[in-house]
Amino acid sequence: MSHGLREVKDPGASARVIEATNRKRAGAALDAEEIAGVVTDFVADRIPDYQMAAWLATVACQGLSTAELAALTRAYTLGGGRLDLSGVDGAVVDKHSTGGVGDTTTLIVVPVVAACGTPVAKMTGRSLGFTGGTLDKLESIPGLRTTVPLDAIVPTLSSVGMVITGQSTDLTPGDGATYALRDVTGTVESIPLIAASIISKKFAVHADGLVLDVKTGAGALIQERDRAVRLTETMLDLARAFGLSARAVLSDMSQPLGPSVGNALEIRQALAVLRGERTPGLWDLCATICRLMLRSVDPRLTDEQAAARIDRVLDDGSAYEMFLRWAVAQGADGAALEAERLPAATRRQFVRAAESGWITRIEPRAVGNATLLVGAGRLAYDAPLDHGAGVLLRHRVGDRVAKGDVIAELHYDRGDADTARSLVESAVHLGDEAVTAPSAVQQIFEP
Amino acid sequence: MSHGLREVKDPGASARVIEATNRKRAGAALDAEEIAGVVTDFVADRIPDYQMAAWLATVACQGLSTAELAALTRAYTLGGGRLDLSGVDGAVVDKHSTGGVGDTTTLIVVPVVAACGTPVAKMTGRSLGFTGGTLDKLESIPGLRTTVPLDAIVPTLSSVGMVITGQSTDLTPGDGATYALRDVTGTVESIPLIAASIISKKFAVHADGLVLDVKTGAGALIQERDRAVRLTETMLDLARAFGLSARAVLSDMSQPLGPSVGNALEIRQALAVLRGERTPGLWDLCATICRLMLRSVDPRLTDEQAAARIDRVLDDGSAYEMFLRWAVAQGADGAALEAERLPAATRRQFVRAAESGWITRIEPRAVGNATLLVGAGRLAYDAPLDHGAGVLLRHRVGDRVAKGDVIAELHYDRGDADTARSLVESAVHLGDEAVTAPSAVQQIFEP
Repeated sequence: MSHGLREVKDPGASARVIEATNRKRAGAALDAEEIAGVVTDFVADRIPDYQMAAWLATVACQGLSTAELAALTRAYTLGGGRLDLSGVDGAVVDKHSTGGVGDTTTLIVVPVVAACGTPVAKMTGRSLGFTGGTLDKLESIPGLRTTVPLDAIVPTLSSVGMVITGQSTDLTPGDGATYALRDVTGTVESIPLIAASIISKKFAVHADGLVLDVKTGAGALIQERDRAVRLTETMLDLARAFGLSARAVLSDMSQPLGPSVGNALEIRQALAVLRGERTPGLWDLCATICRLMLRSVDPRLTDEQAAARIDRVLDDGSAYEMFLRWAVAQGADGAALEAERLPAATRRQFVRAAESGWITRIEPRAVGNATLLVGAGRLAYDAPLDHGAGVLLRHRVGDRVAKGDVIAELHYDRGDADTARSLVESAVHLGDEAVTAPSAVQQIFEP
Repeated sequence: MSHGLREVKDPGASARVIEATNRKRAGAALDAEEIAGVVTDFVADRIPDYQMAAWLATVACQGLSTAELAALTRAYTLGGGRLDLSGVDGAVVDKHSTGGVGDTTTLIVVPVVAACGTPVAKMTGRSLGFTGGTLDKLESIPGLRTTVPLDAIVPTLSSVGMVITGQSTDLTPGDGATYALRDVTGTVESIPLIAASIISKKFAVHADGLVLDVKTGAGALIQERDRAVRLTETMLDLARAFGLSARAVLSDMSQPLGPSVGNALEIRQALAVLRGERTPGLWDLCATICRLMLRSVDPRLTDEQAAARIDRVLDDGSAYEMFLRWAVAQGADGAALEAERLPAATRRQFVRAAESGWITRIEPRAVGNATLLVGAGRLAYDAPLDHGAGVLLRHRVGDRVAKGDVIAELHYDRGDADTARSLVESAVHLGDEAVTAPSAVQQIFEP
């Protein structure tokens, strides 16, 4: 009976989480033991979903003090393993992005930095809502294994120089248990809950350097710039409290970051950049992230020196070769990848300019949602993806277009393509006056 | 899989409740349609417990505006019936208490007011936490049916003059669905959620007069006096907005209201009062509630006139006869009730004064929890009760006791009696100086 009296799994554990919920709502501070108790009780399945949901919602409303936030972050890692990267020759770097539309940065910056000689260990996730997930993108590469066992990470880092793998919930059991619940209870937008989730995973990997890419603007999880800055500073403080050498960039998500939105489309996009194409917006942000990643493990490196290294590996093909070598090491069919034999949708719809003018806005959520409608992302949790589907934007904010010009292509095979195309159409705004697009890099946080 | 990806019952309904949760947390006002949507979706089982728990927890944190509160109250009644009391000759009155320890008022005031000639329709609930529930107490009367079908309420009111029955969730489906969830997610202490729950039920019954008894002090749901006043005013405003003629009393719950705590013990207590015993504290509050109930349907009645009527029905035995006639009408064995053949525990433990002095405090939660330990209330949701068990307090705050005097008796047959006795022991505080107990009636709210 769904609405009747509910089974209590463990009366003591339930009493504790109810007490913690009431105290938190009343404005009390929770101590570390209490927070660890709630999280480990939930991980051990001693308290039901609805009680954890009420606790998380209350935390989302009331916020967490610095001490509570550190306690929650630590609690997420309790009972989990920790990656030992000490066997890798040289300093290892990690990066994290809060996610966005057309954000293919991981697939570019990891091989670039690795090609510069700094090993990169990157654990990544699936798509969330209207934003794409690196793991889903990688699955469009034939043969690629997206999960590297924990004990194979160091050998792969040593032999190849980079690893991209699905997140292991073995490292952060508490985050793993609460993540799905947060996603379905409207508590994903809470700054402390985001910070604890991200930094707990970064603490478990514990790379020598860490770069956080926090999005702001209409297509970001946290849209308002001041809240995005607060999230950035919260995470940096937390990372430092856990002994991580962290840097961050605040980046623009008021329009899709790159022209390609969709899984295989974004793999193609990354390959194009790695072959030397400096795609506006996307490359600007990637170059900054790469520079910060190099400096996070070698602070003596100047900006100019870092930029020169990055340009070199892009121009001499070594970044591209790094990507290929890595993909093959994780099981990919190298020949297929080089020939770009990737999933592709067979059908197209086009969005054309209704009049001549300047593109003043491309609403990223509408573009992201359009790709969901044709199967590039998930509307339900276990929905299979169409890896070839997506949107290709031929223009960016600030471009001048003439009436009838194609602004965007919808690539699809199934789904509600008409609605998807209208969504993209409604996402693109034209105006009579020239506008300048916001810079992809909005603010840099270095110690 | 408990912590895996959760099944979404209805993606649209889930999206709406998540959106409402996020908007409410961000400080937005929810409109009536949105609130009605969330509640009716939950009633129809279109959204899962954990999403509703997060929504309720967020509402508990953020509060509700007057308009939102009215919308939630209305939403609780959607899809429900409404009791039509128009067939009853004369004005009908209703009362509600927020619940406490040793609070036997319903069993006294309903027959007293009914004996005064004003029909009383009272729907009541089960025990919640450490406080007793009228329904549980009534079940200790042999044969009594605690559920009167909706269509039998008006005939019983007309023929007997009073009805006490278990709440029909048919009247307030939304409150019925959320009540159990609130109880187990730490959201019972929220003023707007309490107010909406109570007033929705009172609106569905829609008696001509209504008296609210709001407890304050250590044993009350809302302990702080200023919050209890706020709850009272919130409920009065809400009741008036729904066209109910409401009065209220703020009453003291810093010690157990009456000497008897436990189901059959409280029935005996009520019978003693109805036979003319004016038990200190308990009767003081009952007399005030009765007076307010009579005035709520006949405002021209002066306090003195009301008091005189109440004294008369107590002294001439008509209140006691009303209780007997009503109990028999609802199936009770009248002879057994008159002979007080009620469940009784066979074992006793005594709490004695460790020294001579004045009783300065009797902590009501500790006493209530002691009765839980011997089965007078529920530690788990489906636990069977021991109707004979409980605590009998021989003294109240302000009494002078000599070393060795029995202050309280524990009546029991099973359970952890030693812990229960220590709890009662620890609940009673003695001091060297005379103290005056707070008045049972703290504040009266009349228009």
